[in-house]
Amino acid sequence: MNLSEMSQEQLKNFLAQTQKEYDEIKAKGLKMDMSRGKPSPAQLDMSLPMADVIGSDPKDYLTANNTDVRNYGILDGIDEAKELFAPMLGVSKSEIFIGGSSSLTLMYDTLAKLIIFGASEKDTPYCKQEKIKFLCPVPGYDRHFFITEQFGIEMINIPMTEEGPDMDMVEQYVNNDPAVKGIWCVPMYANPTGITYSDETVKRFANLKPAAKDFRIFWDNAYCIHHLSDTPDKLLNILDECKKTGKEDMVFIFGSTSKITFAGAGVAVMGMSKKNIKYFKSLISAQAIGYDKVNQLRHVKFFKNYEGLLKHMEKHTAQLAPKFKVVLDTMEKELAPLGIGNWHKPNGGYFVSFDAPKGTAKEIVALCKDAGLVLTGAGATFPYGNDPDDSNIRIAPSYPTPEELQLAIDLFCVCVKLAAAKKLVK
Amino acid sequence: MNLSEMSQEQLKNFLAQTQKEYDEIKAKGLKMDMSRGKPSPAQLDMSLPMADVIGSDPKDYLTANNTDVRNYGILDGIDEAKELFAPMLGVSKSEIFIGGSSSLTLMYDTLAKLIIFGASEKDTPYCKQEKIKFLCPVPGYDRHFFITEQFGIEMINIPMTEEGPDMDMVEQYVNNDPAVKGIWCVPMYANPTGITYSDETVKRFANLKPAAKDFRIFWDNAYCIHHLSDTPDKLLNILDECKKTGKEDMVFIFGSTSKITFAGAGVAVMGMSKKNIKYFKSLISAQAIGYDKVNQLRHVKFFKNYEGLLKHMEKHTAQLAPKFKVVLDTMEKELAPLGIGNWHKPNGGYFVSFDAPKGTAKEIVALCKDAGLVLTGAGATFPYGNDPDDSNIRIAPSYPTPEELQLAIDLFCVCVKLAAAKKLVK
Repeated sequence: MNLSEMSQEQLKNFLAQTQKEYDEIKAKGLKMDMSRGKPSPAQLDMSLPMADVIGSDPKDYLTANNTDVRNYGILDGIDEAKELFAPMLGVSKSEIFIGGSSSLTLMYDTLAKLIIFGASEKDTPYCKQEKIKFLCPVPGYDRHFFITEQFGIEMINIPMTEEGPDMDMVEQYVNNDPAVKGIWCVPMYANPTGITYSDETVKRFANLKPAAKDFRIFWDNAYCIHHLSDTPDKLLNILDECKKTGKEDMVFIFGSTSKITFAGAGVAVMGMSKKNIKYFKSLISAQAIGYDKVNQLRHVKFFKNYEGLLKHMEKHTAQLAPKFKVVLDTMEKELAPLGIGNWHKPNGGYFVSFDAPKGTAKEIVALCKDAGLVLTGAGATFPYGNDPDDSNIRIAPSYPTPEELQLAIDLFCVCVKLAAAKKLVK
Repeated sequence: MNLSEMSQEQLKNFLAQTQKEYDEIKAKGLKMDMSRGKPSPAQLDMSLPMADVIGSDPKDYLTANNTDVRNYGILDGIDEAKELFAPMLGVSKSEIFIGGSSSLTLMYDTLAKLIIFGASEKDTPYCKQEKIKFLCPVPGYDRHFFITEQFGIEMINIPMTEEGPDMDMVEQYVNNDPAVKGIWCVPMYANPTGITYSDETVKRFANLKPAAKDFRIFWDNAYCIHHLSDTPDKLLNILDECKKTGKEDMVFIFGSTSKITFAGAGVAVMGMSKKNIKYFKSLISAQAIGYDKVNQLRHVKFFKNYEGLLKHMEKHTAQLAPKFKVVLDTMEKELAPLGIGNWHKPNGGYFVSFDAPKGTAKEIVALCKDAGLVLTGAGATFPYGNDPDDSNIRIAPSYPTPEELQLAIDLFCVCVKLAAAKKLVK
């Protein structure tokens, strides 16, 4: 029976029963963390053979063209790393830059350069301009918002639809307000909604006519090969689309192997037009002599080629898909019949985005915490940590074992029921 | 006989003879590179066993407190890396930040943060201030100057003495001009002079009374354990001295293992006051989730402790000292009797700084290049690539084999003689 159709007496009984269930779980003294999209130990173990591909033979450290990766140089990455990762980003070898170990850092550094130096040689640095605004599809990735907030950039919420950000609103802002300089996008299996932008959405991005000529799209394609089924979503190639409209300098694409090999010890990459590559290489040439090429070569030798990389991803799918099933099946069983909350069934990525009844997200997260389950803080998926509806909760099923996860999601559903019922009882 | 005492006829004979020697060497078609302070393959080979300390056992990836270094987190570095590197910088474990793989990048990032955010929460960002100037001891490290130039900071030359930068001049600028916000220092075995700052110099740094309260010292202690003899230079601890004067927030100390293990694939570190660590950690928390902890742990397991690190450095000394001897002995034999040029005999570091007769450095470098030897560009050791005397040449003996090096330095001396004689012949 739908919770909203219950009488006050039925609700009170439901609440008492749910409170009892909650107290029982709480008494177990659980200790679980689903706050971040961390790979599980089992996933990390899949990349352990990477330790053996480079050993103590000096020859192991030579690239195909006989460059010793143990020494200085090669700012933009070794050739074979470009070859490996270019197809992942959907760019050519001359449109990719191999960075350090974190795409988040690459994004931060790129934005920092726009602030200090401007979007091109001809543009005024953001720091010399009056006011800078970024569009933030919501719910979105908290770390994008943290970077933007720290840089003092005003953030504007753009609601997500089933096809991606509300493009009417995006066009309205971008094409009219010259202070709007950028937008954060996770175009495939978005964090946290799991939505993949439709072809129409990507085309509309490529057809933007920004009022600010230094407007840039931060296309964080973090989950582009992180499928949860063998019928993956398909994302249109943004750089190709932008080339068609002559706007190829408008987009920066990011990715990494943080959730493919080791988190924080992988390889981060960015793809962009040749003109942008040239500009950023000239700027980065003051910041670095070269990034960790030993780790680049280690990844190349481990995966061999892009096919090998995709093959490796199938193992991640095998690990993650059952976990997402636990979460979604349990919510379907426990919450759907009661008509509580909304969620999207993601076909990839790392999260389930749950929209609780308005005004209950903070309470649900607090109830979970009191019973030993740490979730991403309510509000974290919105700029300034402020979810105006106090509704969205990001669930990260990757880290716990399936058994822990079942306990955790059972608890979560009890907390959701409890908060929802409390709200309805008069 | 001293060149300056020769008659014109003697000079002409000398020139003809030297030209003949040059032509003979040129005919050999040599191909050598001494442009950068790159470790030699033999030096890199010393760290090959590092590949074996972490293997394909998941337990290999656990820190002492059971943190899995393959996953996200620990922004400021694993505890055992702090313990290993803190004594190298002369700071405590709570005064060190373990960064990525390059101290140059750490310096760039630190300066970028001063530009965007200011030297502390209370200071105005450099980018919001009228004019920013940095003091640059000369000759100095070209990459310091490149960073400063790219950021649009005005550079002021400060001559180096045998005790470090000319401190009268440093005090004059720092204590009076509020636009002077920083100074670049390589305090031990300076790049390229090889000079180690005297105790008096370090104390005078700690006693600066900057007109700008956001003045900072960039103390690039790159060569602090890179000795060339068993009677190393000693450098006073700048952070300790600054604590005595209550100025501990004024200095940032940098170092890395780029020339200890693998160049570009090592571990970079910075040391600073606890207050500064807190400030920069809060800023870096938007830029990164954590740096490559697998590589941190790899270094820790390889060196075991600071004693092990110092022991490893003895092997570098054994490799490098004979190379420096080749350079210095040859210059002593070939140039000293003729009274051409000046140089300092370094007790550590990576360079020999050679001051050619005024107005000949560019020609010497060009002559070497024509005969197949690439040197660091003349002028590179000065801001804006402008050596007002066209005199200083940086010699980097580390990369070639001793045999190649002998050929190279023979050629170099011939070129010096040739340029010097040309200048005197009327």
